[in-house]
Amino acid sequence: MNKKMNILMFSGEYDKALAALILANTAKEMGMDVTIFFAFWGLLLIRDPSKMNEEDKSTYERIFANMTPKNIEDLPLSKMNLAGLGKKMLLEMMEENHTPTLTDFLNGALNKGIKMQACKLSCEIMGFSKEELLEQVEIVTANDYLKDAMNSDIQLFI
Amino acid sequence: MNKKMNILMFSGEYDKALAALILANTAKEMGMDVTIFFAFWGLLLIRDPSKMNEEDKSTYERIFANMTPKNIEDLPLSKMNLAGLGKKMLLEMMEENHTPTLTDFLNGALNKGIKMQACKLSCEIMGFSKEELLEQVEIVTANDYLKDAMNSDIQLFI
Amino acid sequence: MNKKMNILMFSGEYDKALAALILANTAKEMGMDVTIFFAFWGLLLIRDPSKMNEEDKSTYERIFANMTPKNIEDLPLSKMNLAGLGKKMLLEMMEENHTPTLTDFLNGALNKGIKMQACKLSCEIMGFSKEELLEQVEIVTANDYLKDAMNSDIQLFI
Repeated sequence: MNKKMNILMFSGEYDKALAALILANTAKEMGMDVTIFFAFWGLLLIRDPSKMNEEDKSTYERIFANMTPKNIEDLPLSKMNLAGLGKKMLLEMMEENHTPTLTDFLNGALNKGIKMQACKLSCEIMGFSKEELLEQVEIVTANDYLKDAMNSDIQLFI
Repeated sequence: MNKKMNILMFSGEYDKALAALILANTAKEMGMDVTIFFAFWGLLLIRDPSKMNEEDKSTYERIFANMTPKNIEDLPLSKMNLAGLGKKMLLEMMEENHTPTLTDFLNGALNKGIKMQACKLSCEIMGFSKEELLEQVEIVTANDYLKDAMNSDIQLFI
Repeated sequence: MNKKMNILMFSGEYDKALAALILANTAKEMGMDVTIFFAFWGLLLIRDPSKMNEEDKSTYERIFANMTPKNIEDLPLSKMNLAGLGKKMLLEMMEENHTPTLTDFLNGALNKGIKMQACKLSCEIMGFSKEELLEQVEIVTANDYLKDAMNSDIQLFI
């Protein structure tokens, strides 16, 4: 198939990330070319949980990196999070239904060769260096995003 | 007109649903072909308020079905809800302006033949059976969504 | 370049507005034709802070106009706002990185001739008159939005 999807992943919430990664994996399995461009809160989805470079961070960047979840399974829901209760309920319902976790879908995306890009400006503002992100992630500009998106058949802002 | 719009309705909030359904109705009136794919919280927009099948639900699914609004007029705003006060104010402002309610726009969409689809995986996770949804709603997969969206002139994630 | 982008700006939050305006400015600099259609909370981005017409407003419209920020720099974040603390932190991190403010990006968009449109129905419901919006803003219908979006290469709902 000669079709292409581009997702701009702005949000850093469990449910929205799940939606984005399910769409991305399904599209890739159908033979579509898929790019996900992670910006702002979306960067929280592609941190390498085992790597944190505190030395090169300013005070604010260090606080930010430490107060946000390092593991994507710890991301909150966009609504009905109810201090974690709603999230726990969703996870239980997913497990009853044998639905893979967010981590599974993210690994699926990485293994399938879905293009993973991080927004350069967002990385600079939030103080994330390339080493702190998953190794498959490439850092690109808004200009690069637009070139990819304008040639896609589906563009979504999530 | 030979144009097509596809909306992925992820959110279950009054204001976002209003935006989606106003766009969908307007597009259909202009002669566009319109599909709305309801996923995650979006499923709360297409429940049949008169039907609830508690027997086939797991404990979590039963709690979820009961703690979420059965009637779309009871959905909260995405912001400034202020425990219902902001919502009430918006409704008053809409009434002053003789704007139809969310229910009116939903009925309009159903009557005009806008394609209404529910995400199969979301239904399974949240425990909604076909009988609990509006009868015009068809349950389809993410694969079906992508086929429809890739052939649309406008795709929106709301 | 003969490419076109259309952004439907539904949200009225600092971070989402920043994302939209960075994309819009970058696209325009690349030679793309860019339209932003401001609806619902998005109207809060294009108010003229120096103009408020209280006389023609109903009670609810007056309360709404006064309880929402008149200046875009006062808009909250979509998450981690933490009663303003998260917002202050983001602004500090932006300043450390010499990133322009939201106001700078908005002025950039206005100066570059990015098409700025306000949703007619949203203006009527919220009680904003043409005089209370930035002078570059044109008030158009959902019908107009759809015509522009269907002929765009990129459409985003933010």
